[in-house]
Amino acid sequence: MDFTTQDSAALDKIERQAAERYEALSRRNLQLDMTRGKPAPEQLDLSDGILGIVGSGDCMGSDGTDYRNYGILTGIPEAKAFFAAYMEVEPDDIIVGGNSSLTMMYDAIAGAVLFGVSGGKGPWRDQEGVKFLCPVPGYDRHFAVCERLELEMVTVEMKDDGPDMDAVEALVAEDEGIKGIWCVPKYSNPTGIVYSDAVVDRLASMKTAAPDFRIIWDNAYAYHHLGSGPASVKHILKACNEAGTPDRPFLFGSTSKITYAGAGVAMLAASPDNIADATKKLFYASIGPDKINQLRHVRFFGDLDGLIAHMDRQAAIMAPKFAAVDGALEGHLADKGIATWTKPEGGYFVSVDLVDGCAAEVVRLAGEVGVKLTPAGATYPLGRDPRDYNLRLAPTMPSVSEVEQAMEVFCACVELASARKLREMAG
Amino acid sequence: MDFTTQDSAALDKIERQAAERYEALSRRNLQLDMTRGKPAPEQLDLSDGILGIVGSGDCMGSDGTDYRNYGILTGIPEAKAFFAAYMEVEPDDIIVGGNSSLTMMYDAIAGAVLFGVSGGKGPWRDQEGVKFLCPVPGYDRHFAVCERLELEMVTVEMKDDGPDMDAVEALVAEDEGIKGIWCVPKYSNPTGIVYSDAVVDRLASMKTAAPDFRIIWDNAYAYHHLGSGPASVKHILKACNEAGTPDRPFLFGSTSKITYAGAGVAMLAASPDNIADATKKLFYASIGPDKINQLRHVRFFGDLDGLIAHMDRQAAIMAPKFAAVDGALEGHLADKGIATWTKPEGGYFVSVDLVDGCAAEVVRLAGEVGVKLTPAGATYPLGRDPRDYNLRLAPTMPSVSEVEQAMEVFCACVELASARKLREMAG
Repeated sequence: MDFTTQDSAALDKIERQAAERYEALSRRNLQLDMTRGKPAPEQLDLSDGILGIVGSGDCMGSDGTDYRNYGILTGIPEAKAFFAAYMEVEPDDIIVGGNSSLTMMYDAIAGAVLFGVSGGKGPWRDQEGVKFLCPVPGYDRHFAVCERLELEMVTVEMKDDGPDMDAVEALVAEDEGIKGIWCVPKYSNPTGIVYSDAVVDRLASMKTAAPDFRIIWDNAYAYHHLGSGPASVKHILKACNEAGTPDRPFLFGSTSKITYAGAGVAMLAASPDNIADATKKLFYASIGPDKINQLRHVRFFGDLDGLIAHMDRQAAIMAPKFAAVDGALEGHLADKGIATWTKPEGGYFVSVDLVDGCAAEVVRLAGEVGVKLTPAGATYPLGRDPRDYNLRLAPTMPSVSEVEQAMEVFCACVELASARKLREMAG
Repeated sequence: MDFTTQDSAALDKIERQAAERYEALSRRNLQLDMTRGKPAPEQLDLSDGILGIVGSGDCMGSDGTDYRNYGILTGIPEAKAFFAAYMEVEPDDIIVGGNSSLTMMYDAIAGAVLFGVSGGKGPWRDQEGVKFLCPVPGYDRHFAVCERLELEMVTVEMKDDGPDMDAVEALVAEDEGIKGIWCVPKYSNPTGIVYSDAVVDRLASMKTAAPDFRIIWDNAYAYHHLGSGPASVKHILKACNEAGTPDRPFLFGSTSKITYAGAGVAMLAASPDNIADATKKLFYASIGPDKINQLRHVRFFGDLDGLIAHMDRQAAIMAPKFAAVDGALEGHLADKGIATWTKPEGGYFVSVDLVDGCAAEVVRLAGEVGVKLTPAGATYPLGRDPRDYNLRLAPTMPSVSEVEQAMEVFCACVELASARKLREMAG
């Protein structure tokens, strides 16, 4: 039954039934959290072998360098080789850093604000009207970096194959102030979409008014599939090299959702000029990364095949949770005209679009019966979803049965909020 | 025999003898490095127990938090308690971070440039003539941060009990652009001096024209003595609290020279306002520190007594090297009027003052016979020692016998360069 075609009386009845179900659920005294894309303990357990893998007398590089001591600003050679394979670049094209790609992304953009980037006209702080393109819905931590660094955020719509490239091309061609775009090219946060080759090619070859335009290519979920194997995305650095825009992309990766979140390794890949510039910037602020932890990662996986097998084991844990989310949505909300949702093949999120004006109310209703959801608006710059209709579900951390319980609440809240909203609109 | 009172003929003879000795030393084909303050392998070995101390199933905080996952921006409670004791503050007054206090210092100052600090008039980037006081000789990485962030460096003389406070007080009272001062309060880099209580009190209570003046208190060698036990320095945060300037100091610490250089833990202690401001800044750039590595440190030492006993073992390894430096200097250069040097009771360096105009030449001469020294000028802003007379010796990394060999070369080079310079001056 499509709610949106019902009259007031029917909606009234729907609302009363939904309210009863919500009331019943509230008596379960749940305490569930679906707010953040955190790995579950069982996923973390898969990496426990990393803890003891570098032992006493075992901290030397293959050239005899003692990784317990100072030195090596851009990552140990073993880690550069390993993560170059991971990022499909050459070892010279990569900096292997500390525990957070967010930090590396922040540093890259803060460095551009303070000092500029290769090919530009100096520090961005000295320029007026500096802006960033933000495909929406997107990742709140990306938007927060722009907010903090006072880069005006210009939204573009996220489509099934990447950002709306007609809009992107028109904007970047016109406005010299637009300095970059945020991209999560594979299993995008939160919609889970995968960029098409055409989108990658257009990003690489589009004309930008800014000479120092940068694509922030946050490939956070490069190998993070849900059972079907990692999707293939055209390589942005290779596409840019072919298009004659080699300095355009900064590629980021991280093992936060491969080994441990916080005790992982992050990396930046880019053109030789960009790597030289990033290395120079790094010198002033760093004595080098944690080389021992880099060595742990290389030893633990051995090679890229080891990592890929590891990600298959992660997928086996995560897939049933995503299936539970989709099952609940299909079971409760299909054909009611009040929600559409993504069916990702990787990544950490399901994105749900509701009736306009219902997202914040659903979060409030769910919260009141013990199910914490990512705040409404979080997927938009400054936390403001103009239509108040998009929500991000993060099902990885709870158990399957917890996901099932949380989704029952979520669906009831969507029905209740939608019925109220539609009745209100019906007048 | 005092070289400086000899006539030309005598200096000629001294120079010929020194040249012969230098020539003989060159035939040893040495390859020695005294450039950087790096721990020796034997010192690093003392910490090898840290590698396996956090194992599988053993990564939980005392409150059950899984430290393998996301969360906790400012350090795990166990590490806050431990390093609060280390820094003699309360756990709430500390942020325990990543692997580098240099990074935390850079971030603190870059954050002030971009966003300002508590009590100030906004971002330093929006203000004219922003300057930093640099006691000289000092630490090259401190000066490099100022250089990078375009803070003009104003030098003040380092005395036996700290910076020349008459000069400091006069400068900061007059010039609102002077925003801070670099301090290594214990076993200062490179002179090894320890700040007196009077200097600490004057730093805390002096009137500064800038409302947001900051003391960068890089307590890098807090427990790094050479056998006599850690020196006592008046606590700058307590002194500032008493003086009514609680927001003035940022206190930094690091285990880079306690456990592993690069795989250690760094920390910032400060007033509640400063910690709140630093935490806010951190949020945008970080998913939190490596909690597992923090846990390793706490488990490895157990408590502060454990760390202090560990530093006694480090001292036993380092002291003979410093004795070898002092023995060589006393044996070869005493009473010749061509060198004075420090006799530190902790830290990583010996500072040597030569005849004006000899420092770069000594580094060149030593380098040509295989003994690498810290470049002349490194202890001054922009690498420019106006008198070309100060050198920093870093004896910790080589073995005792290597230090002895390197010092024989160093002393011969000092004699040769001094004799030449004095003869030239004598005309």
